[in-house]
Amino acid sequence: MTSLFLRTLREDPVDAEVASHKLLVRAGYIRRAAPGIYTWLPLGLRVLAKVEAIVREEMEDAGGQEVHFPALLPREPYEATGRWEEYGANLFRLTDRKDGDYLLAPTHEEMFTLLVKDMYSSYKELPLTLFQIQTKYRDEARPRAGLIRGREFIMKDAYSFDVTEEGLEASYQNQRAAYQRIFTRLGLEYVIVAATSGAMGGSRSEEFLNPTAIGEDTFVRSPGGYAANVEAVVTPVPEALPYDDAPAAHVEDTPDTPTIDSLVALANERFPRPDREWTAADTLKNVVLALTHPDGRREVLVVGLPGDREVDLKRLEAAVEPAEVEPAGEADFAAHPELVKGYIGPEVLGPQGPQVTVPAEGKTPASSHSAVRYLLDPRVVEGTRWITGANQHGKHVFDLVAGRDFTADGTIEAAEVRAGDPAPDGSGPLELARGIEIGHIFALGRKYAQALGLTVLDENGKQVVVTMGSYGIGVTRALAALAEANHDEAGLAWPAHVAPMHVQVVATGKDQAVFEAAASLTAELSARGVEVLYDDRPKVSPGVKFKDAELLGAPLVVVVGRGLADGVVEVRPRQGGEAVQVPVAEVADLVTEKVAALLA
Amino acid sequence: MTSLFLRTLREDPVDAEVASHKLLVRAGYIRRAAPGIYTWLPLGLRVLAKVEAIVREEMEDAGGQEVHFPALLPREPYEATGRWEEYGANLFRLTDRKDGDYLLAPTHEEMFTLLVKDMYSSYKELPLTLFQIQTKYRDEARPRAGLIRGREFIMKDAYSFDVTEEGLEASYQNQRAAYQRIFTRLGLEYVIVAATSGAMGGSRSEEFLNPTAIGEDTFVRSPGGYAANVEAVVTPVPEALPYDDAPAAHVEDTPDTPTIDSLVALANERFPRPDREWTAADTLKNVVLALTHPDGRREVLVVGLPGDREVDLKRLEAAVEPAEVEPAGEADFAAHPELVKGYIGPEVLGPQGPQVTVPAEGKTPASSHSAVRYLLDPRVVEGTRWITGANQHGKHVFDLVAGRDFTADGTIEAAEVRAGDPAPDGSGPLELARGIEIGHIFALGRKYAQALGLTVLDENGKQVVVTMGSYGIGVTRALAALAEANHDEAGLAWPAHVAPMHVQVVATGKDQAVFEAAASLTAELSARGVEVLYDDRPKVSPGVKFKDAELLGAPLVVVVGRGLADGVVEVRPRQGGEAVQVPVAEVADLVTEKVAALLA
Repeated sequence: MTSLFLRTLREDPVDAEVASHKLLVRAGYIRRAAPGIYTWLPLGLRVLAKVEAIVREEMEDAGGQEVHFPALLPREPYEATGRWEEYGANLFRLTDRKDGDYLLAPTHEEMFTLLVKDMYSSYKELPLTLFQIQTKYRDEARPRAGLIRGREFIMKDAYSFDVTEEGLEASYQNQRAAYQRIFTRLGLEYVIVAATSGAMGGSRSEEFLNPTAIGEDTFVRSPGGYAANVEAVVTPVPEALPYDDAPAAHVEDTPDTPTIDSLVALANERFPRPDREWTAADTLKNVVLALTHPDGRREVLVVGLPGDREVDLKRLEAAVEPAEVEPAGEADFAAHPELVKGYIGPEVLGPQGPQVTVPAEGKTPASSHSAVRYLLDPRVVEGTRWITGANQHGKHVFDLVAGRDFTADGTIEAAEVRAGDPAPDGSGPLELARGIEIGHIFALGRKYAQALGLTVLDENGKQVVVTMGSYGIGVTRALAALAEANHDEAGLAWPAHVAPMHVQVVATGKDQAVFEAAASLTAELSARGVEVLYDDRPKVSPGVKFKDAELLGAPLVVVVGRGLADGVVEVRPRQGGEAVQVPVAEVADLVTEKVAALLA
Repeated sequence: MTSLFLRTLREDPVDAEVASHKLLVRAGYIRRAAPGIYTWLPLGLRVLAKVEAIVREEMEDAGGQEVHFPALLPREPYEATGRWEEYGANLFRLTDRKDGDYLLAPTHEEMFTLLVKDMYSSYKELPLTLFQIQTKYRDEARPRAGLIRGREFIMKDAYSFDVTEEGLEASYQNQRAAYQRIFTRLGLEYVIVAATSGAMGGSRSEEFLNPTAIGEDTFVRSPGGYAANVEAVVTPVPEALPYDDAPAAHVEDTPDTPTIDSLVALANERFPRPDREWTAADTLKNVVLALTHPDGRREVLVVGLPGDREVDLKRLEAAVEPAEVEPAGEADFAAHPELVKGYIGPEVLGPQGPQVTVPAEGKTPASSHSAVRYLLDPRVVEGTRWITGANQHGKHVFDLVAGRDFTADGTIEAAEVRAGDPAPDGSGPLELARGIEIGHIFALGRKYAQALGLTVLDENGKQVVVTMGSYGIGVTRALAALAEANHDEAGLAWPAHVAPMHVQVVATGKDQAVFEAAASLTAELSARGVEVLYDDRPKVSPGVKFKDAELLGAPLVVVVGRGLADGVVEVRPRQGGEAVQVPVAEVADLVTEKVAALLA
């Protein structure tokens, strides 16, 4: 400790919200260099190396071959797949001295595809799985939680190449199994959930989420085994209702109903239903949003959903990707005077709304479309009857029937998912939980191979497009998740196989014999392959040393102090359990055994 | 080999000039992703890991502690030291989504300085040496020779922190010794030469050069042990000559003397010297150059040197860094009509030239300076007599005496160094050679600590500025140098400790028994820790397999083929030496022994 480049901090860093971030900084594992960009200090680098080694071993065992791509890449391949634009502001772009366009890669599908295209030409050479452990970049709008959402981070990314669907499925399952082994070895709890594919594209994807209250991802589970990221939850569509007997829509004065609650109260008072009370679920809420497309174009979108549900912006964002979304602003309303705030109804939206003619541009013929795109929650099926805005201040329309009185441009998964909602596969009511995305696997299919021309000759001598999978683990994020899952108020408490050291030996007091015994124990343990950090600081109080040992989080702490006079030292397990007094002659054996047991 | 991600190429890549580049690509070790940016394939990555491991071990043995900094860094620290500008077009710059300025770090002095400032505060915590093995970026104007001059590359960079000069000297010598051990272990020949510090700054630096004809650096050596990069060679200054008896300068018609040779011939014919013939060394050549300063300002510079020497642009560049230099163009001459091409003489240059008044700007007072800066080769000492241009077409001036008839703005080390020139320390005539810079160590002194405020309390409780050293090894470049030094026409021939595999087992023919014996030998050797690549390709001819084995460069090749029927296999050392026939029962032992011997 006297020579280790380390300063522990008593105060939490001001920008830290979550425990792993606070503790990794306070314990001198990492240090912030810029928002979302961290420096690895000696102890942090040791943990990182151990996490990487486990990932590498399992990737190799799964038949993956390691390569290493540059982080700085030319624009062209990403242009060919459309991702240069689709990534929008999340992509770090730069130009070189010759004004060539480059990017800092957030992921490497394009480059792997081109590499295999460059090297292979026959079905006989497939299947193939390549991987790398490499530094990646993403210009996050809101980097947060330390390593959990960073702008420079380490990923293990793997890519599989197959000729047939069955081959892709086998490669995908092979990686999926490797991921299960990796997270099990790391000691990271995980749930595998269905996920959306986002900018990656592809037919199917699953996420590995580490359940934790501080997770950024919300996921759902049903008693029958359904599990999905909340963005991927598909709303079960109710059956259409008959509406032959439905009364005609009628506009009513509804003064002073600024909220759905006040509207429902007024409806129950002034226009009571014979069968039951009106509820918020009888109202159709039309939420105005603004999309920004990758090409910079701004579009006003209205989402119609039952009034008892909110729009979930993350679900909406996943549904409209690569566009970015935000609540509409004053300028958006000003551009669309037909939108009467608080009283927006379907009549001015989508197919039934005012039409706008767009002049021809390039190859596109001139077109006429509605001024405001209108998308409905899947629950708004044909025949459902709604109270909704009448597009005049102080008025709502009643008995407006979907399919009879209005239609939309389509449906959208944008409404919040709630505990108790039915699972889409009928496996029971959903419960919600939060997690950190530590892995994501994609059955990409032929998207990248098609765009970049990766074909091989099949058995019949015919060129066929290769089908691919892509498989990512956030290595630095997994480390943060480990810190998050293994800490208490006093500090970190690492599982042995990723701890920067197995044992912290603490010498207390001023007695020379104590320091000699501690040094000799350190030497003895090190000779046996046990990794020891020896707190040999001469003028630091025992209290501070114990605090530091708890903060740093070695699985075992051995205290050499006053007891030495009686021939004993103390062995404390960091993760809880009894501290034991051990005769000094036996301590090296005991600690070696305990470490071996922890690593087993 | 049937599953390894590898395709060897018979043709050299079109952009490759040097053998290491050609062979590393042809043998499937690396592949170009963009100019100066490479992808590492499985075999290349194995060599890289071994080189890194040797570097890491020696750094740790020398007391270095490993950390890892981001590559993407904010502008501010580099602004504080002036390097944001000084690096000019060599720096990759970018902005993030919030328009913050960032760079891809070419080296990390600033960040290490700030980290230590952030963590340490007392002299007691020093000395300290930190290092990292990390990906770096440099937007080279002319990336070349594959990994030798790349734009994304791996460096080991180390930094030492001391309070005293003696401490810095000890840290510097410690790293210097570690470098000697590293290059010795890598099997890379090296010469340690005095060097210029360039953009790095600092008081002293030395380079480790790997001597090779394809090296970009020229260095000199003397019989007495002087060694320097040619940029760092200091010209011994002759003593001033008396010139009381020198005749007055006289302008003569010198028609048709476009070259120095023609001028000398005319002088000998028309104005013969009584004592000896005129030679080119009697003429003063004034070379017009254009500097571009980091702030974009362009400046015309004239260098005066004896007519028998050329300007060495690399020496000149080192002398004027951070400015970039090129021969003056038409626009530069147009801006300076006093420069009469082919007849330029001192009278219009420097102190005696036309003066220009620069208006005051900011805090700078208005100043008057000569239009064209004039710098002289150190050999042009006071009293030397010259034939040089008379600033009129067709005329030269004779007996123009330095110090009497003209002066300059200073001297510059810009003339070529020639074999036979005297060493500056009097240790004899210089010989020239070429090398690859594989390491560079700098005694930086207090430049960075001063600029960034890194101080510690000394023994007397006084704040003192820390003194630093910085020590770099081009890891990927060292790998290329190894490939360059260990190849022949047939391919690579790795030293065992960095080879991607120790042995290549080649099965030839179609006999099932051959393939079984080869597979069994591979398994046996692998079980003993010998790294084997087994060429198990079923339908590839022996000739192609042998060619591939030679191209890939494992230190030993074991051929299992026809001889198996007689109970023997062949063991061929790649680096030369006799192929031997070995009884199949003994081959595992023999190969294990040979590998152990190669690794010893």
